[in-house]
Amino acid sequence: MKKNVIVGQSGGPTAVINASLYGVVSEALAKEADFEKVYGMVNGIEGFLNGQVMDMKPLEKSGELTLIRTTPGSYLGSCRYKLPEDLEDQVYPELFEKFAEYGIGYFFYIGGNDSMDTVSKLSRYAEKTGSDIRFIGIPKTIDNDLVHTDHTPGFGSAAKYVASTVREIAVDASVYDNKKSVTIVEIMGRHAGWLTAASVLARKFEGDNPALIYLPETAFDTEKFLSDVRAALEKTANLVVCISEGINDGKGTFICELASDVGVDTFGHKMLTGSGKYLENLVKDRLGVKVRSIELNVCQRCSSAMLSDTDLSEAAASGAYGVKCALAGETGKMIAFRRGSGEAYRIDYVTEDVNLICNEEKTVPAEWITGNGSDIGKEFIEYALPLIRGKVEVPKKDGLPLFAYRR
Amino acid sequence: MKKNVIVGQSGGPTAVINASLYGVVSEALAKEADFEKVYGMVNGIEGFLNGQVMDMKPLEKSGELTLIRTTPGSYLGSCRYKLPEDLEDQVYPELFEKFAEYGIGYFFYIGGNDSMDTVSKLSRYAEKTGSDIRFIGIPKTIDNDLVHTDHTPGFGSAAKYVASTVREIAVDASVYDNKKSVTIVEIMGRHAGWLTAASVLARKFEGDNPALIYLPETAFDTEKFLSDVRAALEKTANLVVCISEGINDGKGTFICELASDVGVDTFGHKMLTGSGKYLENLVKDRLGVKVRSIELNVCQRCSSAMLSDTDLSEAAASGAYGVKCALAGETGKMIAFRRGSGEAYRIDYVTEDVNLICNEEKTVPAEWITGNGSDIGKEFIEYALPLIRGKVEVPKKDGLPLFAYRR
Repeated sequence: MKKNVIVGQSGGPTAVINASLYGVVSEALAKEADFEKVYGMVNGIEGFLNGQVMDMKPLEKSGELTLIRTTPGSYLGSCRYKLPEDLEDQVYPELFEKFAEYGIGYFFYIGGNDSMDTVSKLSRYAEKTGSDIRFIGIPKTIDNDLVHTDHTPGFGSAAKYVASTVREIAVDASVYDNKKSVTIVEIMGRHAGWLTAASVLARKFEGDNPALIYLPETAFDTEKFLSDVRAALEKTANLVVCISEGINDGKGTFICELASDVGVDTFGHKMLTGSGKYLENLVKDRLGVKVRSIELNVCQRCSSAMLSDTDLSEAAASGAYGVKCALAGETGKMIAFRRGSGEAYRIDYVTEDVNLICNEEKTVPAEWITGNGSDIGKEFIEYALPLIRGKVEVPKKDGLPLFAYRR
Repeated sequence: MKKNVIVGQSGGPTAVINASLYGVVSEALAKEADFEKVYGMVNGIEGFLNGQVMDMKPLEKSGELTLIRTTPGSYLGSCRYKLPEDLEDQVYPELFEKFAEYGIGYFFYIGGNDSMDTVSKLSRYAEKTGSDIRFIGIPKTIDNDLVHTDHTPGFGSAAKYVASTVREIAVDASVYDNKKSVTIVEIMGRHAGWLTAASVLARKFEGDNPALIYLPETAFDTEKFLSDVRAALEKTANLVVCISEGINDGKGTFICELASDVGVDTFGHKMLTGSGKYLENLVKDRLGVKVRSIELNVCQRCSSAMLSDTDLSEAAASGAYGVKCALAGETGKMIAFRRGSGEAYRIDYVTEDVNLICNEEKTVPAEWITGNGSDIGKEFIEYALPLIRGKVEVPKKDGLPLFAYRR
């Protein structure tokens, strides 16, 4: 008897997590000889536990599946549910009973670190209990922090958003070039600075903005920062500085935590300040120059206008490749990206042991960070440029992007 | 002897203020029989006073002028310089001596209210002193608040950015739809809510997010707001609310000023809070629901990815039309947009007395605001939809937009 497929999405959304979903579902639906039904779990493993399951087949007929491919965010909904470390916990038999109930033979989970942790635990439980369900992880994260893979789907489009937006912010900041100013742009990334590093791509010429870039990988010193800003203002009247939200002093204290002695709001809550806001106040206080901070909003992870075709195509291809690997008998694996060593950019899809990936974190190599911790070197530029290339035509109506959504 | 043309940009940048510059310059350069030289003033009238003038002709040969057309921000730089009310002030003869020095016969100023004030004063001074220099204003403002014109260049692209971005924020906010949440989006607009109203276009279906929209035109009541949010959360688990930065109590107090009793930052400065942040704290305190606020960054006025072709084309056309009107002898006028009454969208360019435009403000009509001040009616949608239509192909390299810049 043919088994069924189930696929879910987990963790924060990206611009291409739905492209991976498209890849899994369209590949599975195309293999009618191998699979019976293709299910989606709504709100990940948490929703599945509550019986939130949908049949994906009708989406193909209605054309919705094609629209899903270019829709940002998680079509199936997401969750932040961590399975217990203890494989003896009662949630495991409960889950596997539900798998049996739906005739599941193949389980695909699209996500980052935590999602790979889910795949790891389920595959280990399966091995322990002799279940033949195959568990495959499909990578996703704008943070680009998964190990054993050249990069992760979602990063390329987010990097393109950051580079393009910082270029536009710099243009905007430069219009009053008869007056000095500092613009601080805070970019997502708590522990890994990949996305902030992508702001280097915003430069139109050597010496252009952003003139200073700070990642969490380097210990951040506020006095050095002030002297960097002072020096940079000599060359650039309207300075743009990019920082990761996670910049820290190298001893475990985030820069945003330095603002801990601030007041309370009208309602008696402690005012929370981001790293950008803290540095804005610091520059205002110490350098007395016009300064503002900008927090790139959630669109850095969900902009359809900034989709990279490379990113989107790879996301879909890794989903489809996951289905092939599961059919070939693999389990407990994550689909990883291996970059060819030739001149031209080429990616091969491979599988890696998911147990070696979950709960690990890949940061930007120290030697790619230059300028005494305030700049990004050409190695990163060569690494990142191919990932942001290519334009995606998103279906539009009335000048606005059309998105798929669950009814 | 043929006279020369000078053109400047003033006030905040927009995505299409350079398209207007392109319109003026390319039209003037095409009329070699009528004009000798075409100058740009760098940093507006303030820069001109300091002798910052550039010859625009070489930009045509180098191809830079074509690139200027799709470059956001002010290519020539901007200023916020207000000419004195007193036409007896010594700055006026000083300016007109400089005009004579450069052989200026035609003066074009691209900007909003304040820039039209400059055109008004210069043309009145010219009339008073018998100068034959012709002064023409080319409209520009994302705020869409100029009177005697259907709309202003810059608004369409900004509205497209707001609608598209809010649609993406809503998609992003919806992924954890098993948990209630409120996302408050703060949009530019101190006194006029046109841009915030454009967030209504983000809805994919009736009843979709943003479920609540508040403009500065309606007195904002925090208790009514809380009860609106409470009611909306019953229907929509992940609520998106859009507000203008300028929402106020109708008696002159901005909502962001209500947070005046907050503490000081680490450096002893009073913490400044936006309206969105204030309401975020209010919702957290009173409703105890998960809530965040997002301030759309400066890209709402300078996104090249969200250029509306209608907006861009009209910006360029109004610049070119300004040149034709000046040649025909007009002065002290602003180029205005008149919408045809037919079924299909059509704009005619006309001239209006600049003295009637400067220092006036057009707000969203009360009857276009519905839902007891928390929604936008179909009149606005019909008004705004044509303005955001059409895609602009921005030249790209390595996946990023190419912009013109002064060397």
